[in-house]
Amino acid sequence: MRIAMIQMPVCEDKFANIAYAVSKILEASKKNVDLAILPEMFCCPYSNDKFAAYSEEYGGEAQTTMSSLSKELGIYIVAGSVPELCDNKIYNTSYVYDRGGMQIGKHRKMHLFDIDVPGGQRFFESDTLTRGDEITTFDTEFGKMGLCICFDFRFQELARCMTLRGAKVLFVPGAFNMTTGPAHWETMFRQRAIDNQVFTVGVAPARDVNGTYVSWGNSIAVHPWGNVIEHFGAEADMRIIDIDLNDIESIRQQLPIMKSRRTDKYCVTEC
Amino acid sequence: MRIAMIQMPVCEDKFANIAYAVSKILEASKKNVDLAILPEMFCCPYSNDKFAAYSEEYGGEAQTTMSSLSKELGIYIVAGSVPELCDNKIYNTSYVYDRGGMQIGKHRKMHLFDIDVPGGQRFFESDTLTRGDEITTFDTEFGKMGLCICFDFRFQELARCMTLRGAKVLFVPGAFNMTTGPAHWETMFRQRAIDNQVFTVGVAPARDVNGTYVSWGNSIAVHPWGNVIEHFGAEADMRIIDIDLNDIESIRQQLPIMKSRRTDKYCVTEC
Repeated sequence: MRIAMIQMPVCEDKFANIAYAVSKILEASKKNVDLAILPEMFCCPYSNDKFAAYSEEYGGEAQTTMSSLSKELGIYIVAGSVPELCDNKIYNTSYVYDRGGMQIGKHRKMHLFDIDVPGGQRFFESDTLTRGDEITTFDTEFGKMGLCICFDFRFQELARCMTLRGAKVLFVPGAFNMTTGPAHWETMFRQRAIDNQVFTVGVAPARDVNGTYVSWGNSIAVHPWGNVIEHFGAEADMRIIDIDLNDIESIRQQLPIMKSRRTDKYCVTEC
Repeated sequence: MRIAMIQMPVCEDKFANIAYAVSKILEASKKNVDLAILPEMFCCPYSNDKFAAYSEEYGGEAQTTMSSLSKELGIYIVAGSVPELCDNKIYNTSYVYDRGGMQIGKHRKMHLFDIDVPGGQRFFESDTLTRGDEITTFDTEFGKMGLCICFDFRFQELARCMTLRGAKVLFVPGAFNMTTGPAHWETMFRQRAIDNQVFTVGVAPARDVNGTYVSWGNSIAVHPWGNVIEHFGAEADMRIIDIDLNDIESIRQQLPIMKSRRTDKYCVTEC
């Protein structure tokens, strides 16, 4: 499975952002990728005072553009996330399109990011956003895939639930910051991969030191053994990775974590 | 809370190993530690063909020595682990003694370590050992503490269950090897601390490159924010750490992971 990870800059112009994403996905498609993934809030500055103005209802510009593009190119697109307007509420939502342009996945961020570190980052998504209520997986010819957004991935139960549904790759549009990024980002992607014996792929916006919220960048892909396959810096960049999903079964046989779980003594269930 | 982490060599002589552990705990007690922790299989070479010969029944030599010592010194001892013989079965068991020498915790390793990495490590604990069936926490004047052994800690549910019981420090006598150690040891201790917003403390035997099973060593202590407080090398060593358990509440307020869990959408329960 060939995946394009697009760490892109996000500016104030929504349509310029969408156009940039399109140009990068076009570039990726020439290299025969199966799937392209964009960052969290790829066409909206990550700021509580922007989400409403940049939001779009079902069938909005970012969505129709990505749907058309996936059909035109015949690839899957995990379209980062956008502020979704629905019933006067705004969600942080990721849409997934299949090779025919059909929306086959939709995840509304279900854990909102509220943080207040003295001397570090302060941000309360819950001031403006509403949380989603669904755990999300989607189907491809490669098997089932998991999808969540940024802060969602901090909750080990969610990654486990996606894995227990059969997800082979956990896709995570995200945007850690200059406090949590160096402290937690890489370790989280590595340990979720090790614990669940799956691939993990996180894609962030490029760093803009003049933004109100400074993204850590450092998009990353991790193998089920825990080794980092690809790791970006702070700058805008696109990289293509080839992953062999058969490695999942191989790792699970060598180190039987998933099958040695004591489900007679503890259990994780979706409610 | 002041903790002595004792990364000790383990030789073929059970009583020499016990004597070494005693000498180190005595040394630690002069520095006013509250608790001392020993490695997994601290008085038995880590080898399937040794466990039976080195095993002891309830009230065996290692246990009585550690119980007496904890009473004499007035400190807690997390006595690594020993092969425990019970009803013709052998368990990998960790005993905990309080300041009065009373056994206040007993954990039988509940996930046996069976690994077969081509070109790397092969080991099947289940060839000789029987697994335990209990999740273990114990009480101190500092609050509740968690206890598990090595491979147990690979199972995220177990760490979460101990945390949900109220454990503030997860103590893990362990012995990763030269394959899994560099690949997984530090990341696991860091991410369990970050996910559960607790302290994690792992203590391993010193490395013996002539042993049949070569311990990675690298005993480690991690803060609830995920930063490494103490990290050993391969050699025998004792180090003393001071931890402030109030940091747990402070980290949980800054970055509300434990309280933001969507227990309406997933849950982890003990069975």
